[in-house]
Amino acid sequence: MSTAAKTMFQRVCVIGIGLIGSSLARAIAKQKLAEEIVGCDLSVAVCREALDLGVVDAASSNVAEMAAGADLIILSAPVGATTSILETLAGNTDPQALLMDVGSVKGSVVSAVQVAAKDLLVVPAHPVAGTENSGPSAGFAELFESRWCILTPLERRDETYLAAVDKIEALWKAIGSDVVRMDAEHHDLALAVTSHLPHLIAYTLVGAADDVENVNEAEVVKYSAGGFRDFTRIAASDPVMWRDVFLHNKDAGLEVLGRFSEELAVMQRAIRWGDAETLEKAFTRSRGLRKAIIEAGQDSATPNFGRDENTE
Amino acid sequence: MSTAAKTMFQRVCVIGIGLIGSSLARAIAKQKLAEEIVGCDLSVAVCREALDLGVVDAASSNVAEMAAGADLIILSAPVGATTSILETLAGNTDPQALLMDVGSVKGSVVSAVQVAAKDLLVVPAHPVAGTENSGPSAGFAELFESRWCILTPLERRDETYLAAVDKIEALWKAIGSDVVRMDAEHHDLALAVTSHLPHLIAYTLVGAADDVENVNEAEVVKYSAGGFRDFTRIAASDPVMWRDVFLHNKDAGLEVLGRFSEELAVMQRAIRWGDAETLEKAFTRSRGLRKAIIEAGQDSATPNFGRDENTE
Repeated sequence: MSTAAKTMFQRVCVIGIGLIGSSLARAIAKQKLAEEIVGCDLSVAVCREALDLGVVDAASSNVAEMAAGADLIILSAPVGATTSILETLAGNTDPQALLMDVGSVKGSVVSAVQVAAKDLLVVPAHPVAGTENSGPSAGFAELFESRWCILTPLERRDETYLAAVDKIEALWKAIGSDVVRMDAEHHDLALAVTSHLPHLIAYTLVGAADDVENVNEAEVVKYSAGGFRDFTRIAASDPVMWRDVFLHNKDAGLEVLGRFSEELAVMQRAIRWGDAETLEKAFTRSRGLRKAIIEAGQDSATPNFGRDENTE
Repeated sequence: MSTAAKTMFQRVCVIGIGLIGSSLARAIAKQKLAEEIVGCDLSVAVCREALDLGVVDAASSNVAEMAAGADLIILSAPVGATTSILETLAGNTDPQALLMDVGSVKGSVVSAVQVAAKDLLVVPAHPVAGTENSGPSAGFAELFESRWCILTPLERRDETYLAAVDKIEALWKAIGSDVVRMDAEHHDLALAVTSHLPHLIAYTLVGAADDVENVNEAEVVKYSAGGFRDFTRIAASDPVMWRDVFLHNKDAGLEVLGRFSEELAVMQRAIRWGDAETLEKAFTRSRGLRKAIIEAGQDSATPNFGRDENTE
């Protein structure tokens, strides 16, 4: 075809057609970066849904079959599935094909590649973007716009690999992301702070609220606008995806959780002893960070995120 | 004046012209519930700002002077100031005047009334509504619409008092709130769950993120869309107001904080031991609560609160 020479990829195969996978498929289609986009998901129902939505041109649960002939394979399944998917791909993939995983943990992916897919061109990537919704219908092409995508390239310096990383960077830029490169270990610590710990805390808080036997669920719902509702958004995220994040980023997760717990103990003590100064000082230091996040275009300055205009 | 007979109040005095006080002044004006609204704030600059904004007809830092002649006095200062304000009012207020405090803690207010203002008609109220912004410019008339206002009446059964409570209930309904009555102790526990603990956790998380020395602030800002940014909204709330909440709701605060810490220890152990089942189970139980909150009209169903449409 005459346009073939212009597209970045011929056949893109998305393995795991959830929020992120289906958003990537949509963004790639919107920017006309591929001739053909096919999908693969363990769930036959998800394959069917993705086809019905027009997100992919073909879909099945057979990884080897769908990945055959692809020049870009995107791994967007929960990170716990990475090793087994790589093992399947290792024997069934064009050695020139680019593989990109988009999981929230990167150290474990780098290790999995060493074990299962040393000869493939794997570029680990993590788009720091998402919503609380899951599945192919939750995705949208604009999800990655103005968000950061972190690449954690392997320790390979051959030209083929460096070109692969550059091409993956170009892909993210084409769909609106800013791109930064860092090593996987640093990624896993930074994201433990800005993403993993917040999710763990939100899940824990929502769970704990359910356990106070003198406050019933109807009350929790009614008075949630006091602050609690914010946490329920994050705590509505995909449980299997987040289970895998904590199982695969154990060290950094426990490290930042330890620091949070120490800080919380300081707050607890301040409350117990009526230490007004410690409380006020701790509550004052956060405002600057909020301002910086808004100025960086990473959140809305509208009060309450502007959500009230969307609430019945 | 011919309209005088129709308004609910002649002169309303708002003490503490912040987010809540100025929103109440605006809502009362919008619904034409008072002939005159005056304000009082420790800060002369805030008095000036409220006047410039047209939120109040008059303002000064002299509580006794502004409260004189008022038939409704609203206490919307940080709860730590309640006792001293009540003491000032006790000698300077029409005994028929209604006093309503709108603080986030109610048990300490009930106690303060016993000590400082036994003869005044005090109706403790708590509108479960707010934003992360502070000061008279942050307020708006619609803040209380479709939100719950909790009344925690004193243990008085005389008709004058019961009529006062009914009138306060009518006021909240007139500005769009749903009203519920409960005892102060139950309020303080329920709100510790749905409002106080979430704020404490958010402040603590944002503070802890600042302390991880290998992850700099620029990175926290960049990758905040991974979940962290949600917490910074709440953690940008008024530090003095929240300091006072924890100092005055110590027992319930420590109780729910203890439960949260126990739950967090369970999560920590599950991560350390790779206990996939415990993690997945904990992460699964929150979705129903989110759904209930959206169905109750207490939050937006739009992904990411719809914030991304308001972000540059």
